Amino acid sequence: MKLFFRFFLFAIPIATVLCASQSFAQVVEDFKPSSVNQPGSEFPQVNSEGRVRTQILAPDANYVQLDIGGVKYDLTKDENGLWTGESAPQDPGFHYYQLNIDGASVPDPGSMFFYGACRYGSGVEVPAPDQDIFALKEVSHGQVHEILFPSESTNSQRRAFVYTPPGYDQESPEQYPVLYLQHGYCENETSWPRQGRANLIMDNLIAEGKAKPFIIVMTYGMTNDIEFGGLRNFDIKPFETVLTDELIPFVDANFRTLANQENRAMAGLSMGGMETKMITLNRPDVFSYYGLFSGGIYKPEEIEDHKNLKLVFISCGSKEHPDGVKNAVTNLQQAGFNAESYISEGTAHEFHTWRRSLHQLAQLLFK
Amino acid sequence: MKLFFRFFLFAIPIATVLCASQSFAQVVEDFKPSSVNQPGSEFPQVNSEGRVRTQILAPDANYVQLDIGGVKYDLTKDENGLWTGESAPQDPGFHYYQLNIDGASVPDPGSMFFYGACRYGSGVEVPAPDQDIFALKEVSHGQVHEILFPSESTNSQRRAFVYTPPGYDQESPEQYPVLYLQHGYCENETSWPRQGRANLIMDNLIAEGKAKPFIIVMTYGMTNDIEFGGLRNFDIKPFETVLTDELIPFVDANFRTLANQENRAMAGLSMGGMETKMITLNRPDVFSYYGLFSGGIYKPEEIEDHKNLKLVFISCGSKEHPDGVKNAVTNLQQAGFNAESYISEGTAHEFHTWRRSLHQLAQLLFK
Repeated sequence: MKLFFRFFLFAIPIATVLCASQSFAQVVEDFKPSSVNQPGSEFPQVNSEGRVRTQILAPDANYVQLDIGGVKYDLTKDENGLWTGESAPQDPGFHYYQLNIDGASVPDPGSMFFYGACRYGSGVEVPAPDQDIFALKEVSHGQVHEILFPSESTNSQRRAFVYTPPGYDQESPEQYPVLYLQHGYCENETSWPRQGRANLIMDNLIAEGKAKPFIIVMTYGMTNDIEFGGLRNFDIKPFETVLTDELIPFVDANFRTLANQENRAMAGLSMGGMETKMITLNRPDVFSYYGLFSGGIYKPEEIEDHKNLKLVFISCGSKEHPDGVKNAVTNLQQAGFNAESYISEGTAHEFHTWRRSLHQLAQLLFK
Repeated sequence: MKLFFRFFLFAIPIATVLCASQSFAQVVEDFKPSSVNQPGSEFPQVNSEGRVRTQILAPDANYVQLDIGGVKYDLTKDENGLWTGESAPQDPGFHYYQLNIDGASVPDPGSMFFYGACRYGSGVEVPAPDQDIFALKEVSHGQVHEILFPSESTNSQRRAFVYTPPGYDQESPEQYPVLYLQHGYCENETSWPRQGRANLIMDNLIAEGKAKPFIIVMTYGMTNDIEFGGLRNFDIKPFETVLTDELIPFVDANFRTLANQENRAMAGLSMGGMETKMITLNRPDVFSYYGLFSGGIYKPEEIEDHKNLKLVFISCGSKEHPDGVKNAVTNLQQAGFNAESYISEGTAHEFHTWRRSLHQLAQLLFK
């Protein structure tokens, strides 16, 4: 478990109060509204350096700060009570953030809201050189189905999102392989279809002929209500039961799946990678493709008896622990496994690393 | 058009600054967390009188207000910088609201976020005597599909949500009738599936054998980007084209629909009612069932040539204009139409009126 904690630390909001005055560096004045703003909202904006600028009317406030990447940046007030300010440059991709108004941590009303850090809050998109991979294009689109499935083990009706590829809903007898894809610590089942853009990544890959059409199932993985600091006592069994004994049979009964190990994959990011590893080790008979995104590694001896294993995929951002990932994959390859590594250039423990990881893994699955 | 404006006025956030000090009336201390709070969030809370109490830490704020129902209620600060306060009693059902921190209008981080008033913001649920109609129960559940469809007329890929009833995704040749269901002014395609609970209302009715299973399609109806105050220049044609020439054929091609007038209904709330009326009058060949929820009436002479019309359903809250609705339906009945009225007891121009209206209409459709 120890190895995993190093990775999760990145995901936990930094509680220390770091305060940064506005940088004296020249700010490039080419700010444009973030692509995940509320309809019609001009702020937050992002410039070519990746700085995030936000603005809010708060005529009677004593101070307003932009709280992003664990740092709080002071905004300045004009004569109309409008506060404006910007952050240091951020990595390309999606970032969670919030505002601090006189000590109150609140969402920025200018942005759309995304589930991360255990709550729905603001997000901002710093344009990435490869943002085309998740752009909404004029291609055939799959669907994201919101489903509710009965779970006896937790005595609840649980939610999942199911991506079906273009053409699935036309009358056809075709059956599809399935990827079970898990979110990270303090995220939920909306995180992959929303900020992860899983559906658009797939639509684009399928349109380009680069991925085989398959189904993706995304559900809530913090079944035992892990609380901050509670991962040390993490018990995989409750979620393993929901996933393998309840959700998989439900999906196989309600979607046109290829319902066998050969056509089933599991992957996850951060804590979802840890879950993927634990479940695949406990249940070597369920999945044939394993993916860990910024979420640990497999050692050859851990999976030596996995007879039907077809691929191990391990990834992380270049700002995480790329050597650990590359070495792990080399070890697996030397032991005779079909293993692939992927390093996301210029990104850390954030969603752009994981979008890119899905984009890579999807091209390798079920082939 | 004039008649409609009276109804829409209710939907437009009241811009006048009403300030209310905390009431001196005795407040009943039986507050419980709202059912649409963020996971694990204790506030906002609601008591048996329907008062909404919220709480936020803002140690350096000069004032904090709860802004709900067009009234701002002052919160009071304790020695730790925690602000608490409550509203006057609210009607049963769902309400949009926000916080005001030193002049900044922001979402309450304790609540989930819903699209209304032209932005995603906070919502609170005041328990209603009939909340059972949209409860998540141990019944078979349908699915809510998020789809993207190509729209030539607007040169865009547009989003819709499609509810399919339980059993739809099991292998079966069954085809279903379809209700096209529109949101109100400054709401969007998420409003019916989220705060409207359309899917759960249908799941429960179908489980009780009270509604025939049918598909519901919900898309964005403000196609021509209506701005505040812009309804006077409202042109239905852009949305009519998207709905009838683009979305309906797409749905018929991608879902197992009964693709004919006899099995097609349209309904909408508030502005969505106005759209329903305009589109059904312009295109009497497309739908057989018409529903207006707090969104106007039909006069007999307007629909006298609608040969295939099977039902006109008109509803509103008892705090709106119930006599206008009842008289209109009486007139339609006297003219020989199959018309039904429904008055939602104790509610105004808000979502609980419309959930109940859907609950009523669904029991009458396609029978």
